[in-house]
Amino acid sequence: MSYKVGILGMGTVGTGVAKILLDPVGRHAILQSVEIKRVGVRSLNKDRGIILDPSIFTDDLEAVVTDPNIDVVIELIGGIEPARSLILQAIAQGKHIVTANKAVLARYGDEIFTAATAKGVYVMLEAAVGGGIPIIQTLKQALGANKITAVTGIINGTTNYILSRMSANPHESFAEILADAQALGYAEADPTADVDGYDATDKIAILASLAFGDRIKLEQIYREGIRHVTSTDVARAAELGYVIKLLAIARNHEGLEIRVHPTLVPKDHPLASINGVTNAITVAGDPIGEVVLSGAGAGMGATASAVVADLINIVAAIQVQPQRPNQLMGCSHHHYATVKPITVSTSQYYLRLLAYDHAGVIGDLGNCFGKYEVNLETILQKHHHQGLAEIIVVTKVVSELNLQTALTEIRSLAALHSIPTVLRLLA
Amino acid sequence: MSYKVGILGMGTVGTGVAKILLDPVGRHAILQSVEIKRVGVRSLNKDRGIILDPSIFTDDLEAVVTDPNIDVVIELIGGIEPARSLILQAIAQGKHIVTANKAVLARYGDEIFTAATAKGVYVMLEAAVGGGIPIIQTLKQALGANKITAVTGIINGTTNYILSRMSANPHESFAEILADAQALGYAEADPTADVDGYDATDKIAILASLAFGDRIKLEQIYREGIRHVTSTDVARAAELGYVIKLLAIARNHEGLEIRVHPTLVPKDHPLASINGVTNAITVAGDPIGEVVLSGAGAGMGATASAVVADLINIVAAIQVQPQRPNQLMGCSHHHYATVKPITVSTSQYYLRLLAYDHAGVIGDLGNCFGKYEVNLETILQKHHHQGLAEIIVVTKVVSELNLQTALTEIRSLAALHSIPTVLRLLA
Repeated sequence: MSYKVGILGMGTVGTGVAKILLDPVGRHAILQSVEIKRVGVRSLNKDRGIILDPSIFTDDLEAVVTDPNIDVVIELIGGIEPARSLILQAIAQGKHIVTANKAVLARYGDEIFTAATAKGVYVMLEAAVGGGIPIIQTLKQALGANKITAVTGIINGTTNYILSRMSANPHESFAEILADAQALGYAEADPTADVDGYDATDKIAILASLAFGDRIKLEQIYREGIRHVTSTDVARAAELGYVIKLLAIARNHEGLEIRVHPTLVPKDHPLASINGVTNAITVAGDPIGEVVLSGAGAGMGATASAVVADLINIVAAIQVQPQRPNQLMGCSHHHYATVKPITVSTSQYYLRLLAYDHAGVIGDLGNCFGKYEVNLETILQKHHHQGLAEIIVVTKVVSELNLQTALTEIRSLAALHSIPTVLRLLA
Repeated sequence: MSYKVGILGMGTVGTGVAKILLDPVGRHAILQSVEIKRVGVRSLNKDRGIILDPSIFTDDLEAVVTDPNIDVVIELIGGIEPARSLILQAIAQGKHIVTANKAVLARYGDEIFTAATAKGVYVMLEAAVGGGIPIIQTLKQALGANKITAVTGIINGTTNYILSRMSANPHESFAEILADAQALGYAEADPTADVDGYDATDKIAILASLAFGDRIKLEQIYREGIRHVTSTDVARAAELGYVIKLLAIARNHEGLEIRVHPTLVPKDHPLASINGVTNAITVAGDPIGEVVLSGAGAGMGATASAVVADLINIVAAIQVQPQRPNQLMGCSHHHYATVKPITVSTSQYYLRLLAYDHAGVIGDLGNCFGKYEVNLETILQKHHHQGLAEIIVVTKVVSELNLQTALTEIRSLAALHSIPTVLRLLA
C-alpha cells in the first residue's frame, strides 16, 4: 500500500523534503511506500530545481488539504495564517499533519491538538524546534520515565551566531555582525523575531509544554533579546570565566519558570562550546541526570530530516493501526500551566556599572546591596576613561525583586553614572 | 487495563527500574497502567532497599518468563547465559522483551530478533548502549530519513574516565588511575571488558547494525584497547592539539568500516570535551549533517530511564495494536554486513619513535615513509634521556598497509631503537 502526502510550501525545507522522498534508497524502507501527491505553492512559475511532475503543483492550497486521496499534509508555509486555517481544515478532513511551524503551534497549539485528538489524527512537530535534533521525540518518548526538572537550550541559530562572533572577535560590534549575518543568510532582513527572542520564546513554549505536561501561554514567558549585549560585556564575562549565550530555560524550581534571555554560561558547561548557528538542548531529569543533544538548528537538510522522521513515524503507526492513535505520538495536555512571574524568580546576576571615580563608591554600593540581601560573589573595579570607573558585580543567587529594589536605590547614588548592563547567570 | 512486567535481576539497574515504576506520578501517564508482577533473582535473601512485596520475588527465573500473566520481561541479569535462553524462552511465550544486555545482543541478536519477528513481539534495547542517551531510538526512528555515513562514539565510561584523568594529571600512570577507578566503582575488578575495548566493540556492533541496516559479526570489528597509551602520548597529543579518546567508529567509507581504538581527537571536536564517565555519540548523515548526543553512559538512574522508556514504548504500541508490531520498533535486518578488514583502511596516524641520536635519522625515516607513500603532516624531534631521541610523527591520510610496510622497514634501521606507540587520528 502506498501513502499519499500533500506538501504546503516548496521553499528551502519543502525542497529538502522532496529530495529525500524522491531518493528513498539507503533511508528507512518505509519511505518506499510514500508518494508526493500534491504540492501547494503561492506561485506556480518558480523554478525549484527538483524533478517533480509539474501537474501535481497547485496554487490552490485548500485543494491540497481537502484532497480525499491525501493521507498526510506537511505544512511548510510558516507564519500564522493561512497556515492555521489550513492545518485545521486538513485535520477536519481526517488527515495527519507534519509541521515545522513553531509560531502557529506556540499560539494555536491548544486549538490544533484539541481538534486532532477529537479526530484521531497525529500532529507531529519535530522540525519546529532544533532543526534535525530529535528533541521532540526525546521529550515525548525517550525521557518518559523521568520527572523533568529543566530544559535549557540554545535554540536560535541567528543569535548564537552573533554572540559567538562577538566572543571570537572583540572588536566587531553587534551591528556589524548582524549586517554580516544578514548578508550570509543567517539573519532575516527584519531580525526582530530572532534578535529580540521571539523565535526562542515560541520554541521554549513548545519544549516546556512537552517537558512539564501542560500548555503554556506565550505571554507568561519572560523574554529579553540580545540587542543590549555589548562587546565590553562579552569581554568582561570571558575574564570572569563565562560565555554569553541567548538561553531559553524552562525549569521546575518551586513552580514553573520559563524565560529567554542572554545568560552568562560557565566556560566548562556543555552549552558554552556550542558556537555559530548550531543549536543544543540539555534536559535534566530524575533519574536520568542530564542529557545534551546538539546539531544544526536550521537549514534545508536538518529540518527536512526532522519532517521526514515525523512522516515515517506516522506511516509506521497507521500501517498497523489506522483507527486509534498511539498515545506517545499524541498530545494529552488539557490544562494551561501556571508560570511563575519573573519578579518572584531568583538568579545570579552580572552587573556592569559606571561610577564617578569617588572614594567610597564601592562601599556605598556594598551597603545598598547588603540592605536588600543581595549577596555578592565578585566585585571588580576597572579603570575607565572620562573620569568614570567601571565596576563589575557578580551576585550570588538572589531574588529578582530584591535586586531590582537595590538597583533602584543604587541609581539614585550621587556617585553612580549609569548601569549599562544587567544579565543573568546560568545557575 | 494494566500491563504486567516481570523483571529478571534486581541489581543496580533493576532497583532503579523498580523505583520508577513504584513512583509513577510526574512521569509519563502510561506508567500508571504498569505493574511489577514478578521479580526473578539469584538470591532471595538480599536486602534491596525498595518496598516490593516479598511474595513477588522468586529464584526460579524460568517461572518469570513462563508466567502467563506477564506481558513484558525486562532482562537485567547480564552476561550470555542464562540471559540468552531466558530471553528466547520469553519470546517463545509471546512476551515482549526489554534488555540492557549488549553482550547477548551483539552475539545472539540474529537468533533473538529472528525469533521475535516470527512471534510478533518487540525486543527493545535502548539501555544496551549509552545509558540514558536516546541513541537507539534516534537511529531507529528520528534519523530514518537519512543515509547515515558515520557513527562515532565515546561509549565506554571506564576508559573515558581513565583517559580523562591521564589528560588532566600528566603525572599519574595508567595503572594508578585504573586502581582508583576500581576503588570508585568506575572499573570492574577484572577490567578487561572495558580496558581492552570488548564492551565498546559489543556496543558499536549494535549501533552499526541500526545505522547501516545489516547484522554485524563481532569478529570483523577491529579492536584495540587503551593499555598501551602512555602519559607521554597523552602529553604529546595535547602539544599537537589533540585529546586521546577510546572511540568506537562505524563509517561508510567505500565500504563499511567498524573499529574501536584509542584515537587522537582534535581539541575543538565535540567529542574532545566529553570527560569522565560521560558518553557521547555523533551521528553523521545525509541530509542532517551531524548530531551529537551525550549524557551519563551508565549508572542506576540513566540506565533505568532507558529501560523504562522502552517499556513505555511497548505499552503504548500494544495498547492500540497488540497483533502487528510497529515496523519502527522492530528489527528488519536479515543479512550480515561485509565489514572491510582494517588492512585495507586508511587513516591519519600518530607515531612515537625512539632513535639513537645519530645525524641523519630524520632523513632515513623520511625516505622510508616516502618510499611507501606515507606522506607526513608533522615530524618533531624531542630531546630524550639515555642517548635516545624521541621523534613524533603525524601522517596525512595514508593506507594502513603502506604504513605497516613502512614501519617494518623502519624497525630495521640501525638508528631506530623502538616504536613505542602507533595511534590513529579521527579523520
